[in-house]
Amino acid sequence: MIRDAYAVRTGIGPRPLAGGRVPRPVIEVIERDDGLINGAPADHYLDEPAEWQPHDHRALRLCRGQVLDIGTGAGRTAVELQRRGMAVTGLDTSPGAIEIARRRGLRDTVVTTIDAYAAKAATRYDTFLLLGNNLGLLESAERAPVFLAALARMARPGARIVAQGTDPYGTTDPVHADYHRRNRERGRIGGQLRLRLRYRRLATDWFDYLNCSPAELEQLLAGTGWELKSVDLADKPYYLAVMEFMR
Amino acid sequence: MIRDAYAVRTGIGPRPLAGGRVPRPVIEVIERDDGLINGAPADHYLDEPAEWQPHDHRALRLCRGQVLDIGTGAGRTAVELQRRGMAVTGLDTSPGAIEIARRRGLRDTVVTTIDAYAAKAATRYDTFLLLGNNLGLLESAERAPVFLAALARMARPGARIVAQGTDPYGTTDPVHADYHRRNRERGRIGGQLRLRLRYRRLATDWFDYLNCSPAELEQLLAGTGWELKSVDLADKPYYLAVMEFMR
Repeated sequence: MIRDAYAVRTGIGPRPLAGGRVPRPVIEVIERDDGLINGAPADHYLDEPAEWQPHDHRALRLCRGQVLDIGTGAGRTAVELQRRGMAVTGLDTSPGAIEIARRRGLRDTVVTTIDAYAAKAATRYDTFLLLGNNLGLLESAERAPVFLAALARMARPGARIVAQGTDPYGTTDPVHADYHRRNRERGRIGGQLRLRLRYRRLATDWFDYLNCSPAELEQLLAGTGWELKSVDLADKPYYLAVMEFMR
Repeated sequence: MIRDAYAVRTGIGPRPLAGGRVPRPVIEVIERDDGLINGAPADHYLDEPAEWQPHDHRALRLCRGQVLDIGTGAGRTAVELQRRGMAVTGLDTSPGAIEIARRRGLRDTVVTTIDAYAAKAATRYDTFLLLGNNLGLLESAERAPVFLAALARMARPGARIVAQGTDPYGTTDPVHADYHRRNRERGRIGGQLRLRLRYRRLATDWFDYLNCSPAELEQLLAGTGWELKSVDLADKPYYLAVMEFMR
């Protein structure tokens, strides 16, 4: 839903505020369930490769074969993979985001959830991409094995997941440290964020989004058939994890 | 309260989000009572004159004598007036904002409301400045005469108000047009916004902030002793209004 902010930069959608002559950036507002609110410019969702973070470039070099870009958004990384001649499907739950991705040239797109796609997709994949912090889509200890099983159903032999995550525990900010502590007291993973996104009068439902450490990730993988093969920590607190399916 | 976001740019306050290596702009989040939410970068509050809107430059040329800069914030315009050798007092309700204004060199500051200041201030003023859309501090048809009476108590003979406002009625955005209509149905001025500001876990109380047309402004002035002398419409929908006190 918030991804319809893409539409603004591309001139398709509503303007963020009417009237003013001063151009304003489109801001994505993220609310956390402890009352923390944060706004951030949304235009990075449309960044060209020259503007990317270094880990995004390293992530694309880890892709091979048939790629499923999960949470492709406006196709930021999928369009670049396609440009390099790779076979890539862009999946997103947002019709607005996929519309923009298609206008940017992404040919193979699907608007659905990962569960629904895994239940019906004929294509099998060699690489599952979770970039833009989309390791967060593991959500929780309850959801992670279900999500990973859906990927397993679509996995070719030797398939890998290339995921970018954030280790949240290096912070010294008490707002975050307290949040992590309260989460653990409630039986949640420390960095299991409860969020909603807002844009103008739109608000998503509240959802879980997981920032976990590599050690927590390894625990979540236990028993799923996915095995942690490498963790690239060069851009701390961000990291790139590669997991392979060992059936 | 939101003005403590100033502290971030100047390195005094908390960072907007902990952890990430990617520098993020400080975003001010504005919520309206119809559920509209908007984020905007806060760094314009610290802009140097070269970065200002044209109407701010024209406003400063309309200042004369002893100046009270109401809602001075981090002293953006007051510091420049002082640099030009003018006698200026910066007033704000935010201690955080005034702390930054003082660090930026503003010598004469006061942390209080306009009502409390008018009740006790010994200084009398030739110019009252309401920039950065601070004509909005008129709030409502009920509040405007009280606010204007407070200024009158501090006015020297021939004193003027130099105020920057926004005419909200040029919009074709249905979200805003509907808001204006519902306001009128409830006996409020169309552009009488009900807002609160949020930053991290802080939220102000809800308050009224008035975007009115020059015609509505003229109606609000009736019977207050203040008279509309000129309206500069060069930067529509923004305008600069000059009012003079005719005792």
